[in-house]
Amino acid sequence: MKLDNTAKGVFPIAPTPFHADGRVDEASVDRMTDFYLECGSTGMTVLGVMGEAPKLDGTESLALAKQFIKRASSIPVVVGVTAPGFAAMQTLARASMDAGAAGVMIAPPNTLRTDDQIVGYYRQAVEAIGSDIPFVVQDFPQTFSVVMTPGVLRRIIEENSSCVMVKHEDWPGLEKISALRKFEKEGMRRVSILCGNGGMFLDFEVERGADGAMTGYAFPDMLVDIVKLTQAGERDKAHDLFDAHLPLLRYEQQQGTTGLAVRKYVMARRGIIASDAQRKPAGSISATAKAEVEYLLSRVARVDPRAKLSPV
Amino acid sequence: MKLDNTAKGVFPIAPTPFHADGRVDEASVDRMTDFYLECGSTGMTVLGVMGEAPKLDGTESLALAKQFIKRASSIPVVVGVTAPGFAAMQTLARASMDAGAAGVMIAPPNTLRTDDQIVGYYRQAVEAIGSDIPFVVQDFPQTFSVVMTPGVLRRIIEENSSCVMVKHEDWPGLEKISALRKFEKEGMRRVSILCGNGGMFLDFEVERGADGAMTGYAFPDMLVDIVKLTQAGERDKAHDLFDAHLPLLRYEQQQGTTGLAVRKYVMARRGIIASDAQRKPAGSISATAKAEVEYLLSRVARVDPRAKLSPV
Amino acid sequence: MKLDNTAKGVFPIAPTPFHADGRVDEASVDRMTDFYLECGSTGMTVLGVMGEAPKLDGTESLALAKQFIKRASSIPVVVGVTAPGFAAMQTLARASMDAGAAGVMIAPPNTLRTDDQIVGYYRQAVEAIGSDIPFVVQDFPQTFSVVMTPGVLRRIIEENSSCVMVKHEDWPGLEKISALRKFEKEGMRRVSILCGNGGMFLDFEVERGADGAMTGYAFPDMLVDIVKLTQAGERDKAHDLFDAHLPLLRYEQQQGTTGLAVRKYVMARRGIIASDAQRKPAGSISATAKAEVEYLLSRVARVDPRAKLSPV
Amino acid sequence: MKLDNTAKGVFPIAPTPFHADGRVDEASVDRMTDFYLECGSTGMTVLGVMGEAPKLDGTESLALAKQFIKRASSIPVVVGVTAPGFAAMQTLARASMDAGAAGVMIAPPNTLRTDDQIVGYYRQAVEAIGSDIPFVVQDFPQTFSVVMTPGVLRRIIEENSSCVMVKHEDWPGLEKISALRKFEKEGMRRVSILCGNGGMFLDFEVERGADGAMTGYAFPDMLVDIVKLTQAGERDKAHDLFDAHLPLLRYEQQQGTTGLAVRKYVMARRGIIASDAQRKPAGSISATAKAEVEYLLSRVARVDPRAKLSPV
Repeated sequence: MKLDNTAKGVFPIAPTPFHADGRVDEASVDRMTDFYLECGSTGMTVLGVMGEAPKLDGTESLALAKQFIKRASSIPVVVGVTAPGFAAMQTLARASMDAGAAGVMIAPPNTLRTDDQIVGYYRQAVEAIGSDIPFVVQDFPQTFSVVMTPGVLRRIIEENSSCVMVKHEDWPGLEKISALRKFEKEGMRRVSILCGNGGMFLDFEVERGADGAMTGYAFPDMLVDIVKLTQAGERDKAHDLFDAHLPLLRYEQQQGTTGLAVRKYVMARRGIIASDAQRKPAGSISATAKAEVEYLLSRVARVDPRAKLSPV
Repeated sequence: MKLDNTAKGVFPIAPTPFHADGRVDEASVDRMTDFYLECGSTGMTVLGVMGEAPKLDGTESLALAKQFIKRASSIPVVVGVTAPGFAAMQTLARASMDAGAAGVMIAPPNTLRTDDQIVGYYRQAVEAIGSDIPFVVQDFPQTFSVVMTPGVLRRIIEENSSCVMVKHEDWPGLEKISALRKFEKEGMRRVSILCGNGGMFLDFEVERGADGAMTGYAFPDMLVDIVKLTQAGERDKAHDLFDAHLPLLRYEQQQGTTGLAVRKYVMARRGIIASDAQRKPAGSISATAKAEVEYLLSRVARVDPRAKLSPV
Repeated sequence: MKLDNTAKGVFPIAPTPFHADGRVDEASVDRMTDFYLECGSTGMTVLGVMGEAPKLDGTESLALAKQFIKRASSIPVVVGVTAPGFAAMQTLARASMDAGAAGVMIAPPNTLRTDDQIVGYYRQAVEAIGSDIPFVVQDFPQTFSVVMTPGVLRRIIEENSSCVMVKHEDWPGLEKISALRKFEKEGMRRVSILCGNGGMFLDFEVERGADGAMTGYAFPDMLVDIVKLTQAGERDKAHDLFDAHLPLLRYEQQQGTTGLAVRKYVMARRGIIASDAQRKPAGSISATAKAEVEYLLSRVARVDPRAKLSPV
Repeated sequence: MKLDNTAKGVFPIAPTPFHADGRVDEASVDRMTDFYLECGSTGMTVLGVMGEAPKLDGTESLALAKQFIKRASSIPVVVGVTAPGFAAMQTLARASMDAGAAGVMIAPPNTLRTDDQIVGYYRQAVEAIGSDIPFVVQDFPQTFSVVMTPGVLRRIIEENSSCVMVKHEDWPGLEKISALRKFEKEGMRRVSILCGNGGMFLDFEVERGADGAMTGYAFPDMLVDIVKLTQAGERDKAHDLFDAHLPLLRYEQQQGTTGLAVRKYVMARRGIIASDAQRKPAGSISATAKAEVEYLLSRVARVDPRAKLSPV
């Protein structure tokens, strides 16, 4: 099962569940994977930035990827293989594919500036990992400081037949989706576009032509509904559901460790993982913030019963 | 009428209205100012980044500030005086105060990195403009790349008695508000805290102790209501109104010229300004984006009749 | 006398002489200009970054530019017009040309990232100032964080006939000079290339095809000799002289206010300006650093008598 | 043999020798290590940025470190363990120490901004690797974008007894050395200070109180002489030798892969390594640049016979 440009729906970005002492919580890995499958995910992405991948060492990373892949055997798993150099990238990419991954995701290093540097980087990355491995370009300027124009993405797509997907999280980004889809009408090979940024613009992104979401909001089941409703033409229903979640979604979408702390807190409250622990350097969530999240959950629950949780 | 640390409520960040050919639209300046007064604004801020201040030359800047100050005579006007050097800052600050400004706002240059550099910069800025001019520290790391810890803000506040307000737009930023208010309980001189970021977290910011908003969302009248409702203890009502606007507010809160294009489009639709023109380098709003905004307005209007606009 | 693409030799970047109290020292402005003329400068550049231009207000900037232009009437004067927006740029550019400037220099704002953004910026700048004003592209990534490939420079040159010169201070940059000269052989319109970075690579830059220097090293007379010797084919003599200065030149080439403090100290020691004062925020030179500079001067003086100064 | 705060002399930063096909050239690793020992190095540093460490995968990194440590058994070897997260840092640090390393070097991640973030990072790094491993703080703002004031370095030194050395490569940096040595007179625990930046300011750095160099200039034997001559009070002799090398040293000190290409070219010419190959993404050296380097070598050779090489 290899990733290709027909991918659509929701690929949750899986956080890494930890015990309070910093060890990977393997039981939660399985439980979370089962949850993703049950709620209609069409794929999964592991070892992403918000998955605390950089905090794992090489051995842990691979072991974790393997566990996810094994458990999620019925859906494609994308493995983040972003690395400081091509040797480490190749090692992880090859090992992941051997373990059954469907493809890999590559973010650009923050030293890239010019169009040619960016295009050249992806060319060399493909040379390193091999052109037989399907890959996702992660376009996330706020975090990586690398700005890719639609034209640069087109060059990457046209130069590398193994590029099958763009993980779109530029901000603002709606016009970029339209630009890419326009390029396709003009002859560019089609790629799948899955959107990130916690889902903050998913309502319109799918309307603009995106195929779905690849992000980590603590209610992936809601994201699944949004994509389905939108693709079924149920615009108002999609927005009604989306808008009910937006106050919480926005609260989770705080940069860095704060947002992750909120996400893990809600996932733990939903019983998807056992603990909201982060490995160091860790963000935390204050008592006031917890109370704010509980209030937001209670408001979401008025529309979406999945947010109705047993009291703390 | 000088700005002091009791400032509260809503200080809209005024955009600069332009004609399609790039000239300042003076009639709209007056109309917009009148609108701000009518909708309960307790102050105004002019020549901010989102006011396209850097696109004006020195003569235009001062003329515009004077017009705003004259028209808004019953409320305090804060003038953004951020400049590449202290001489230009002093010139604009002095001229603005002579024209009746209530205070000035100063953002840090993006070359500052260390705590001491930041504190030293504000010390020198106060030496340049004079300690008799009340000033606002603009804490906006996403745009200025300068990260101020709560401790650095405390040092600036304690060193400079003319520092009366923090324009808070760090993101995430809720804990920073709590930290500053805690410092005050421990003895730090009180400052006013007005929040930016388009109002994205205003619902909780006021609950955390902020005094209100200083931002440019196209419905400042809604922001006024949120501050009032929250300070009156009407939490659910505040969130109900806020949540109704959040999908549009979020859409406007796209970085750079895109967000400004949305804001000006809605303000023009509301009749507050005559045209959504930006001076070059200008953002624009596509036909698709306009339709998305109209859809969002129609949804807001179900709860807030102020969003019910005559058809395009 | 308009700047054109035949410009060569040495255009010193003029520092702004200040009195100890921060006022512009007009007598030193004239004395320094006379010195530049006497030592064989073929042009001058004023209001550059290292000229503390951002520390002047608008009125001062223009007055200073006018004084330089008037005094240096026999050689072309380039005025730095980099500004936060096009209105201020246009105002200063027009006024400078009216006062007799030969052309203007424009650095890119540090927010530019992609190739298209950079090219688009220069297109809009030319629209703003008018295509009748010859301009210099300042290519200085270390300071401005904007990386221009040779191909981007070619696009700027080919799109804008008023682009007559590149101020080259990329680092490393020798291959870029070769690339631009190669483009010319392939048909690109010729531009003048004058080099910055304090002259750190001037020995080889001229050999690679640069037309000379535009920089502020405190011995512009030495730079004049290097360009002449190199263009006369006296390679060893050029390097002998250059190498004798390199230890001091390297010492002056410390970033930011430190390097400027060294430069002004040596210029004051040579009697070119009255004082090494900087306007705030000011760098300073410690007693130890002064002693180091004196030691370096004494070593240069063994080869170049111009460095033999009367004792402090 | 553990690194401590008495370390002095020259610790060359070892490049990684590669074969043309990208494999590590193990024979050259040994030959280069022998050369460093013969020329009077008092230590060695491996897996640094300029050692292309990020291009190695985990297994290669450790194998390379082990080979260096084994071969250089009579001098302390510092291993760069900078990593995206603490788990990988701990794994490499522990394994290196087990293999006989004398200490480790840690550079800050480029996301750090505030004083507290920097100090906190080193605190957590020490928690991760253990306080029994001596470590070096790498202070290199031009590459890492993290600016440490002398006061921040003092906090790191005072909080962590295992911090025994600062690799100083701030630029400008002379006053920082003086500031740290002044802190020690006022009671701060002494640390060793070894300087980087290719040695560009080594002549004065040692005079200011630095203990020597930790850098990769292709003539470490010259650096050894400079430190010895300076510490023996032979100031003029030290500068005479330094100045003879400075034109070449400056040429090598071009940022990024260009400078490394020059360094490896000269090392290969000297017979220290077999090839100047870099692993991808690789810099290269043009025919013109080679000729420039040869010319510079011939000029150095007039003073220092070690630069007299057999013709190409």
